[in-house]
Amino acid sequence: MSLLDLLLGKPLASDQARAECIGTAAGIPIFGLDALSSAAYGPEAALTLLIPLGALGIAYMVPISMSIIILLAIVYFSYRQTIAAYPGGGGSYTVARQNLGVTAGLLAAAALMIDYVLTVAVGISAGVGALVSAVPSLQAHTLSICLGILVLITLINLRGMRDTGVIFMAPTYLFVGTLLTAMVIGLFKTFLSSGHPVPVEAPPPVSQAAALPGAWIILQAFASGCTAMTGVEAVSNGVKAFREPVVKTARRTLTIIIALLMVLLAGIAYLVRVYGIAATDPLRPGYQSVLSILLAAVSGKGVFYYTAMASILMVLALSANTAFADFPRLCRAIAQNNYLPHSFATRGRRLVYTQGILALAVVAGLLLIIFGGITDRLIPLYAVGAFLAFTLSQAGMVGHWRRVGGEGATRSMLINGFGAFATGITVIVVLVAKFVEGAWITVLLIPALLIAMGLVRRHYHHVFLEVRCPTPLEMDDVAPPLVIVPVQEWNRIVKKALRFAMKISPHVRAVHVDPGEGSEILHDEWCRFVEKPAVEAGVAAPELVVLPSPYRLILGPIVNYVLQAERENPTQQIAVLIPELVERHWYHHLFHNKRASVLKTLLLLRGNQRIIVINVPWYLDT
Amino acid sequence: MSLLDLLLGKPLASDQARAECIGTAAGIPIFGLDALSSAAYGPEAALTLLIPLGALGIAYMVPISMSIIILLAIVYFSYRQTIAAYPGGGGSYTVARQNLGVTAGLLAAAALMIDYVLTVAVGISAGVGALVSAVPSLQAHTLSICLGILVLITLINLRGMRDTGVIFMAPTYLFVGTLLTAMVIGLFKTFLSSGHPVPVEAPPPVSQAAALPGAWIILQAFASGCTAMTGVEAVSNGVKAFREPVVKTARRTLTIIIALLMVLLAGIAYLVRVYGIAATDPLRPGYQSVLSILLAAVSGKGVFYYTAMASILMVLALSANTAFADFPRLCRAIAQNNYLPHSFATRGRRLVYTQGILALAVVAGLLLIIFGGITDRLIPLYAVGAFLAFTLSQAGMVGHWRRVGGEGATRSMLINGFGAFATGITVIVVLVAKFVEGAWITVLLIPALLIAMGLVRRHYHHVFLEVRCPTPLEMDDVAPPLVIVPVQEWNRIVKKALRFAMKISPHVRAVHVDPGEGSEILHDEWCRFVEKPAVEAGVAAPELVVLPSPYRLILGPIVNYVLQAERENPTQQIAVLIPELVERHWYHHLFHNKRASVLKTLLLLRGNQRIIVINVPWYLDT
Repeated sequence: MSLLDLLLGKPLASDQARAECIGTAAGIPIFGLDALSSAAYGPEAALTLLIPLGALGIAYMVPISMSIIILLAIVYFSYRQTIAAYPGGGGSYTVARQNLGVTAGLLAAAALMIDYVLTVAVGISAGVGALVSAVPSLQAHTLSICLGILVLITLINLRGMRDTGVIFMAPTYLFVGTLLTAMVIGLFKTFLSSGHPVPVEAPPPVSQAAALPGAWIILQAFASGCTAMTGVEAVSNGVKAFREPVVKTARRTLTIIIALLMVLLAGIAYLVRVYGIAATDPLRPGYQSVLSILLAAVSGKGVFYYTAMASILMVLALSANTAFADFPRLCRAIAQNNYLPHSFATRGRRLVYTQGILALAVVAGLLLIIFGGITDRLIPLYAVGAFLAFTLSQAGMVGHWRRVGGEGATRSMLINGFGAFATGITVIVVLVAKFVEGAWITVLLIPALLIAMGLVRRHYHHVFLEVRCPTPLEMDDVAPPLVIVPVQEWNRIVKKALRFAMKISPHVRAVHVDPGEGSEILHDEWCRFVEKPAVEAGVAAPELVVLPSPYRLILGPIVNYVLQAERENPTQQIAVLIPELVERHWYHHLFHNKRASVLKTLLLLRGNQRIIVINVPWYLDT
Repeated sequence: MSLLDLLLGKPLASDQARAECIGTAAGIPIFGLDALSSAAYGPEAALTLLIPLGALGIAYMVPISMSIIILLAIVYFSYRQTIAAYPGGGGSYTVARQNLGVTAGLLAAAALMIDYVLTVAVGISAGVGALVSAVPSLQAHTLSICLGILVLITLINLRGMRDTGVIFMAPTYLFVGTLLTAMVIGLFKTFLSSGHPVPVEAPPPVSQAAALPGAWIILQAFASGCTAMTGVEAVSNGVKAFREPVVKTARRTLTIIIALLMVLLAGIAYLVRVYGIAATDPLRPGYQSVLSILLAAVSGKGVFYYTAMASILMVLALSANTAFADFPRLCRAIAQNNYLPHSFATRGRRLVYTQGILALAVVAGLLLIIFGGITDRLIPLYAVGAFLAFTLSQAGMVGHWRRVGGEGATRSMLINGFGAFATGITVIVVLVAKFVEGAWITVLLIPALLIAMGLVRRHYHHVFLEVRCPTPLEMDDVAPPLVIVPVQEWNRIVKKALRFAMKISPHVRAVHVDPGEGSEILHDEWCRFVEKPAVEAGVAAPELVVLPSPYRLILGPIVNYVLQAERENPTQQIAVLIPELVERHWYHHLFHNKRASVLKTLLLLRGNQRIIVINVPWYLDT
């Protein structure tokens, strides 16, 4: 157990839950890493699609970024309201379920689950991808590094919320700090040079325009840029993890995260334009990420550049953590409504939902292994899930306000309604723009998940109907059971078993299987050691039944005999008493057959409601 | 079960054992393959060591082969006597154990076990090696082919003796037939050409002598040639497998096998000399086996040559089969004396000792995998084991005759004594000549096996002393047990469990673990559904005990409570009654926790003699 303690920390008592709650400083890395890190790839994704437009494309970057920032503001105000309305944790699932019905809730849940799994796989592989392009000698180890980081994040999350926040604080704030510093320097230089700063390190030349600007290409760029918005719902989903006053702390955390993200997106868009930076093709040699070009242009390739790049790598790789914070909470909420296995709702030793963390790690790990650690092709898939969840959540809030009513409800309804409308449009835009590239997979996966969750629920309901019991204990039938004891030879184990059998019932039968070796010795011993003392004590002696077994099977005849006895004694329960030698050392397993264990399993599988298995252990060491 | 039937055949009843017995025709392939196939590598092994002597070395081949044939004759007469003296199967183990004591018996057993495992690995890899040198494109699949053949031989052997004999008859007789034919042709041509036949296909030129003949090099060649004698003990070990009259059939089989082997060895040695054939270096290009050169020289590379070569490949690869026939019988004999796990003495569905067959297959498979299917370096190891077993067996027979006495005993004693002396000398020769090349491994392995077998025996003896019971059933203590029932909520499963508990004892306690969620509902239901009807029926109501669990563990508190109850009730047995939902479909396992199974295991592991586990199953489907 001490290794577990070392890896995961000592177990936490249930009443320590409050102490595990987090404040704003820890909340930003835990729930904001996903959103903030997307500043590192959202603008890049948009700019990549604008490459064919050449220099003209760069000019479109500002309006595209502005639309994304406005969308972000709308979503921000909506979620602010959600936090206040659902202080118990108002993820898209809960809000949609309570206001739009179960199906809408599950739809949001399925969309979010896909989103989270993809976030983990894509985040880690993006970080490792950046690392590998910096240190090409690591190329061959891409998958191992990805899986190593996944294991690390999993372990950190299994340690609990507080520890996670502390560990992720440094890289998050370094990332935000260096990017903001670069922006201040860039803006200052732009101001000094009246809008035409001279780059310290010249960006790669912008290629000739190969296409004319059109609505389709702008739409595609916008849809790609929208990946910058994934992770925004994280805070509202995890409100319960925050310290008292819960709503205020959660709102403050959300405000800071969104504000930082907006500043980063706006700053990047503006500097990209004044420095004239176009994206480079990742499939051609000489590829550099947009942020790398931008940082080099602003400050040259000095210590600052490398610090900033290192923090970007780290934050990308660790952005998966937000999914680890939210996915288990989402699964727990679904499991509490019986749509996922109940084990998702059990808190582990460090008060986190262990099962959800492990499930996320396993599925993301499988994705990483299947794609060999390079998951670029998965990126188009995950904006759909995020925006679908946004839309359902906002739409649910509209219903909430209508239901709740009261002062300010109309205004709140309008804010959420506009949010739902804007994100709904975005879902359609993203779906259309990215359908061929992979969004269709999401379209297929979501109903599959819905069906699976429906089946889980049906099973639990079936069990509930079957085992529920609104009736009291009947006291009428008190006939003792018929006890059947399999016996191989007369020894102390058998004696102990027989004594117990005779304690619990006067109806005891011993069953001996004879694979053709004769049973005279046992008959003789039975007569001397069992029947004689029983007769002397005036007790009915247990009967010895010998079952021939021409094919040398031992267990089959016993099971068949038990089933037959069950049919022949319709008024009695049948208890099969199995003497078992318990092996305390692993190597004992080599010396003794596993008949007792196999017989127990066989009786469970082939038995029925009236057959009960009693296991009388015998310990070698005592 | 029908797949098993197809692979292994229908189960055989114990009384069909006699029908599974074999005659001479099937006995030769089953027990003779190992010995006969060694004609294909024994002479080659000796000739390889004579390469440095050039043409002079070939001349030494005849005296070396003659010594081996004489040794073979001595061993033959010894084993003929063993068969008559031990019609129940007189393997080296049995004979040495009964006449020289347990340690000598186990020494012979260990030597033979090593010999058999090596026979399988080396035989298969030699056959596949020959195949690969004929069809080089198979080179990359060496290991797969080796393992494939191993699986095939294992399956065939699991089908039982009779089937094995039938399957291996064709390749064995083809091998013997073609080699004998080649010899007749060769001798005829030699006779016609007055001792100087012209080879149809000229053998490779003999290299210049690079060394002078000396005692050491001749000794080495003799030691290598002795590998031709492994497998000779097989018949005496498996006497029981033969048809009535057992001794006569077994002796006839041994005579034919040894006679054929002698003729083959003598013929090869003579023809090698008259055709002037030297071995070629297997590590140099242009390598050809001695038999290949010989066959080509005698008959040219026609249809006959290829038929003969194919039969050699097959017989080499299948020579492993003799080990499969004998190893399980050897293990069974050892297991019956408690020096190996008893499962080795159990006959499977086809009346063979399944466990021994599987153990041999697994160990040989591991060797093949570790050495990548090329086991040349293992060859020096296995003559030691075989000759050590020969020596102990002969020495044991000397003791046997001294004990038995009577007519002819002195003559028999002399034959066996001379055999023991000759094979004993050979053990020393082989050990010295091959010590550095690997025989030292055998020297280390044998005592390791001896110690392991001693430990197994000690364990069984310990268990025997502990469980044996020469005393009758005591009828004094009839106090019913204290029954403890873990309860999570009131439902039909719990109700069924409680009813059974109350049938077998008036002392019933229900235990509920509360991980901090409160237990008011259960208390209320207990009062209404259990206590009230019990009081009305005038029965003591089961007590409900609530155990708090601050760390949310469920099973730990239950186990601790049971152990505590055991300490507090020194006069009563404790029965823990575990209600369990039985999952009939694999996917049900995802939905319900495994607490019942884990609790059963925990109670077995942490419990003691006075704690008994009762499992009341609940079936969902019914």
